[in-house]
This record gives sequence, structure tokens and C-alpha cells, in this order.
Amino acid sequence: MIQTQIKTTVKEPRITLVGAGPGDADLITVKGIKALQTADVVLYDALVNDELLDFAPAHAQKIYVGKRSGDHSYSQDAVNKLMVDYAINYGHVVRLKGGDPFVFGRGYEELDHAASYSIPAQVIPGISSSISVPGLQQIPVTHRGLSESFWVVTGTTADGRISNDLYEAARTKATVVVLMGIHKLAEITEIYKKEGKGKLPVAVIQSGSTKEEKVAIGVVNTIVEVAEENKISSPALIVLGDVVSLHPKFQPIREFYDIVAQE
Amino acid sequence: MIQTQIKTTVKEPRITLVGAGPGDADLITVKGIKALQTADVVLYDALVNDELLDFAPAHAQKIYVGKRSGDHSYSQDAVNKLMVDYAINYGHVVRLKGGDPFVFGRGYEELDHAASYSIPAQVIPGISSSISVPGLQQIPVTHRGLSESFWVVTGTTADGRISNDLYEAARTKATVVVLMGIHKLAEITEIYKKEGKGKLPVAVIQSGSTKEEKVAIGVVNTIVEVAEENKISSPALIVLGDVVSLHPKFQPIREFYDIVAQE
Repeated sequence: MIQTQIKTTVKEPRITLVGAGPGDADLITVKGIKALQTADVVLYDALVNDELLDFAPAHAQKIYVGKRSGDHSYSQDAVNKLMVDYAINYGHVVRLKGGDPFVFGRGYEELDHAASYSIPAQVIPGISSSISVPGLQQIPVTHRGLSESFWVVTGTTADGRISNDLYEAARTKATVVVLMGIHKLAEITEIYKKEGKGKLPVAVIQSGSTKEEKVAIGVVNTIVEVAEENKISSPALIVLGDVVSLHPKFQPIREFYDIVAQE
Repeated sequence: MIQTQIKTTVKEPRITLVGAGPGDADLITVKGIKALQTADVVLYDALVNDELLDFAPAHAQKIYVGKRSGDHSYSQDAVNKLMVDYAINYGHVVRLKGGDPFVFGRGYEELDHAASYSIPAQVIPGISSSISVPGLQQIPVTHRGLSESFWVVTGTTADGRISNDLYEAARTKATVVVLMGIHKLAEITEIYKKEGKGKLPVAVIQSGSTKEEKVAIGVVNTIVEVAEENKISSPALIVLGDVVSLHPKFQPIREFYDIVAQE
């Protein structure tokens, strides 16, 4: 009798959005691990490292709601609905998202949906690939004498376009990081060529922080070819700016241009 | 005899740059903790949470090399030199830096100095305040319909100026995050006013993620006053953009402008 009562005790619903980081399981925060350890349900995305699910208790349900760029099998509405349903029925839902929940992660829409059901929700930031993936290649997004700012832009807006912001970004001195833009690399380089920036250093990095990590280094005029040679595919990000010249693979490119300039 | 030999065994010098995150000790990564646990020396900055030092072994030396904006008691050259000297003499040096090492952290200069002595160096990214501090206030740096990009700019360049990039940033639709710019808040709002953006939402957040956290929400025309009323001081960051309108404290401001518009 008592057991039945315990079993049917409804836990307080609550939701925690947790940034899982760029891929390496050890790049989640300590706070993110602590949230997972108290989860009753984990809803996780495509780019989240599976190993992180082991931090959730054995009783916790682990549900894949992944979508990768171009694959919209779970709509945002469906994820929002699942998240609230599970919180009401099971208690603490950890919504585990790649990178940081607020960097093109639609995290605010999830918070807003939780709020509309008066379910308390909190956010635990994650390591965003926009800064960390260049950083792990020892490309600093800012560096004295080369860059006083960095600008992170989406290559795939809600309606599939490159953000208009990129046309403006190409005109500035900011280090520009394009997320979800690898399929439009040629189009992006055209934008930069029109600004006379054919020799601006560019890096394309696939699966940063994981065992599948690959990097292509070139300049605006050559990067499409270099990325193809290196068979770079999604998920990958693009870094455009003088800071990319600090990468060791840029040295031979610099020497080539120096020779060309002397001829 | 054997003991003496062990004692004088020179450990391989190596350096790990670790991002400590925005202030909350639990916002360091698991990988950052693992690095600290194998440290022989920790060189740490002013904005790093002291609690993190407890993860280093008892034998590890913990050395404060902090500098805060405006206080240059330890020059970058001195830090570089200490880092290499300690690595050569004691082994594994963890260079623990606030936020992420490459977001205005001069991390590359430290890597470069290590490389010039052929000391292996790696980087462990940290949670950058630029994304996480707004996020912890539930202000997303990107949000569908409001922002397709975010631009992080320094308010204090090497020669103490606001970065020229901010003048360009003020013209765009990007969410703009200004780090180390609180002392120039009035000057920054003037730049936005000249662009006709007096009603753009602005947040100023001090000591984000810590117990001392304070937030001021307003628009370009009012934020200097609101920040003064709330006694906001350094360290603080500034967020300018429509995404700030999602903060609960913005609701009464919106209502006020709606009333003014109706009159």
C-alpha cells in the first residue's frame, strides 16, 4: 500500500537546458554533469556525445530528439511538447543540447514554452563551438594586432539562407565564424571576393574536439578546393580572418604568396 | 639515496591553458578539472574563482598573477616568463584564466611564448562570459526573428580605446556584446544614438554567474542612468540588441514606450 503511494508520487516538474559543448564529453561543465545526475528524463540532440548519458541515473529515460542541419524529423514544436509532457509526468527533464543552448540552439523557445506551462526552467551554459573549435586548433578568435572582435553568424537561417549579416561581416575587420555554413562555402567565399578579400586566411574545421576532427587551411580564393581535398563535410564551421594566419598550416601559404609577390 | 634521486627527477615541462569560465566554480569543464588535478603549478588570474584551486594537488604551487582591467601590476611579459620558468623547474603548469583563454585573454601570446621554448602547450576552452552571462539572465545572444548573429567587441583595446569595430557593430543587426566596456558606457551609448538607436534594448550585467550578480535593463537612452541607480561596477559586460527585450525586466519599459506612442 505504502509502496504504491511512493510509486505514484508526482515529482515537481522542472526543466534544465544544458549545453553539452562541442563534442568531447569532457568539455561539458561540472554544473552540467550535476544536472544530469538528477535527471528523470534526458532529451538529447544529434551532436551531443552519447557518453554523457551515462551520468544520468539508471532510472532516467534517455530520448533522442536529434536533428541535424537539413534533417527536421523532430520539429521544434514536437521537442517543446515532449519536454513539457515529460516534466509534468516524470519530474526533472534535462534538455541536453550541443554547444551552448543560446547559440543558434533555439534555447529561448524552449524556455518560453516551459514558462507558458509555469514549469520552472534554468539554463546551464555550454562551451560553444564558435569559440572553442577554432581555439582547440590554436586559432584565437581575438589576438592583439590581428582582431579586436569576433562575429558569429549562421550559414543557415530559418528559411535556409545565409544570414544577411554575413554580407556586412565580410566588410569588417572582425574575425568571422560561420556556423552551419559548410554547404554554402563557395557562396560565402564569393561574398568575400566581392569585398576584395581573396587572400584573407580561412579555416574550415569539421567535428572539432572529437576523434573525427579535420581541418582545412587556405585563403578565400583557395579554401573551397582545400576543403574538398580534405573531404570536409558537415558538421563543420568556417573561420575567416587574419587570426587564421597563426595556424601552423598557414606558414607554407604565406611563403607561397611571398614568392609570388617577389616575382 | 634513492629518495634524493626521485626528488631531483626533473618532470617534463608542459603548459595547459585552461578557461575557468565566468565565475561560478561549477562552470569550469570536466577537462579543466582533470588538468588542475595533475598540475604542479597553477598560475591564476584575478577573475578566477579561488575554489578551483582546491582541485590542484596539495604539493602544487598556486600563484596569483592577476590583473584586472586598469591594474597592470603583472605585465603579460612577466606572466609569460613565469609560466615558462615554472614549467622548466616544476613540470606541469596550468595557466588558469577567466572565461575562455582566447576571448581577449591573450592566450595565444602565452602559447607562442611556450612554443619559443619548445614547451608543449595545449588549450582547454572555457565558458566565455560573452555568451554565458547574458544566457544565465535568459537573454539568448541569438533568437529567431530577433538576431541571426552576435558580435563580441572589446571596450578596452591595447591602447585603452573602445575598439573601432564597435562603431561598425552599432550599424548592424547583430546582437553586440561589449566586454571590458563598463567604464565607457556613456561613450558607447553615444555611438548608438548617432545611429538613431536610442530605443534599442540594452542590458548591463555585473559579476555574472556569481553571488554578486547584478543586472540593469534599459534602452540606449536610459541605460547609463539605470546602471548608476543599480550601482553597477566592474567587472560587467554590456549587451545591445533586440534580444534584450526578452528579459522580464524589459516588459515595463516596453509598456512605457507603448503608452508614450499612443499619446
